[in-house]
Amino acid sequence: MEKKKNISMAVIKRLPKYHRYLNELMKNDVDRISSKELGEKIGFTASQIRQDLNCFGDFGQQGYGYNVRELYNQISSILGLSQKYNTVIVGAGNIGQAIANYKFDKQGVNLVGIFDANPKLVGLKIRDIEISEIDTLKSFLSKNKIDIGIICVPRINAQKVCDEMVEGGVKGIWNFAPVDLSVPEDVRVENVHLSESLMTLIYLLHSNEEQK
Amino acid sequence: MEKKKNISMAVIKRLPKYHRYLNELMKNDVDRISSKELGEKIGFTASQIRQDLNCFGDFGQQGYGYNVRELYNQISSILGLSQKYNTVIVGAGNIGQAIANYKFDKQGVNLVGIFDANPKLVGLKIRDIEISEIDTLKSFLSKNKIDIGIICVPRINAQKVCDEMVEGGVKGIWNFAPVDLSVPEDVRVENVHLSESLMTLIYLLHSNEEQK
Repeated sequence: MEKKKNISMAVIKRLPKYHRYLNELMKNDVDRISSKELGEKIGFTASQIRQDLNCFGDFGQQGYGYNVRELYNQISSILGLSQKYNTVIVGAGNIGQAIANYKFDKQGVNLVGIFDANPKLVGLKIRDIEISEIDTLKSFLSKNKIDIGIICVPRINAQKVCDEMVEGGVKGIWNFAPVDLSVPEDVRVENVHLSESLMTLIYLLHSNEEQK
Repeated sequence: MEKKKNISMAVIKRLPKYHRYLNELMKNDVDRISSKELGEKIGFTASQIRQDLNCFGDFGQQGYGYNVRELYNQISSILGLSQKYNTVIVGAGNIGQAIANYKFDKQGVNLVGIFDANPKLVGLKIRDIEISEIDTLKSFLSKNKIDIGIICVPRINAQKVCDEMVEGGVKGIWNFAPVDLSVPEDVRVENVHLSESLMTLIYLLHSNEEQK
């Protein structure tokens, strides 16, 4: 595959959505689809879809549309879903436990460790993985190649955990703590800021009310 | 307050971030801040900040900057955080339980009901709220004014639950199911699509690797 050039984050953020819709089409035994039909399903225009997919290569055929399985496989490969990634979760509170129980095998992600500072949690098992003392994270990272670090600790501890992960060679951080982390340039962070998401909803609700 | 006109979603999405940073400044006893300093903290340019805040009114003073507490209160009020909102959670699996244990009182959100279809969960309590049979949702909504419905059920049931919520007068949906919901125009949906977020991170990691 050619090296990717500056693909905008907006396009990248839409790829998982294509992936999800194509997966559903496959489940419903749809073999091919035009960009117009795909657009109607997803809620994008046909030209948006053609533009997005053109960023990555030459998909689809004039007059035929897209072969669903082929496009699905290509997007999977673009997304990097054909590879395997090892992950650890730090913070086994509510969110950490929910994420630990989350099935992300489909994304090729393999949970290999869970860490927490709370002695009441250490030793308990989630999906056959024992929660370890957070002090052992450093040595764990030095012995195991971990691709993705999932941060589910309180805000105040998040940067420290992040620094340890980065020092231990982790290149991707999935951050659930309500804080913006500082990382070196070659480390990628994806945030899930629940309280910000809820506040956005409240704003929309509230401004809806006011406009009546 | 004046009625809001077409504020772009990009601006709206940045407001919770302002809110969070101003809250931290208040905790650190900072009384006032210039748009330049605030920008350096948040990672926006000073002009971006002035532009954003100008969408909502006349904040800050030339040569003085912003009064932190005043701006915080104003943004809280713009976000609608000075009001109270009742919410129910439908789906008490991993994510539903995590959200039920999540402290969103600060956002003025009050959890008043949890519903699930699983008889093993019905009757259990989370934060003093008993999990109810999902079949009772309809009658619950007819008797209680619920502002926000939180959907944590599997993909396949999400639209049905959403329809019941909308029929029961819910105007805001916080959706954790990996599906795009159809709602009437006056209902607002905010999605938290965890698998899409994880896929975005994997893409960034993967394309990082390839560019080496």
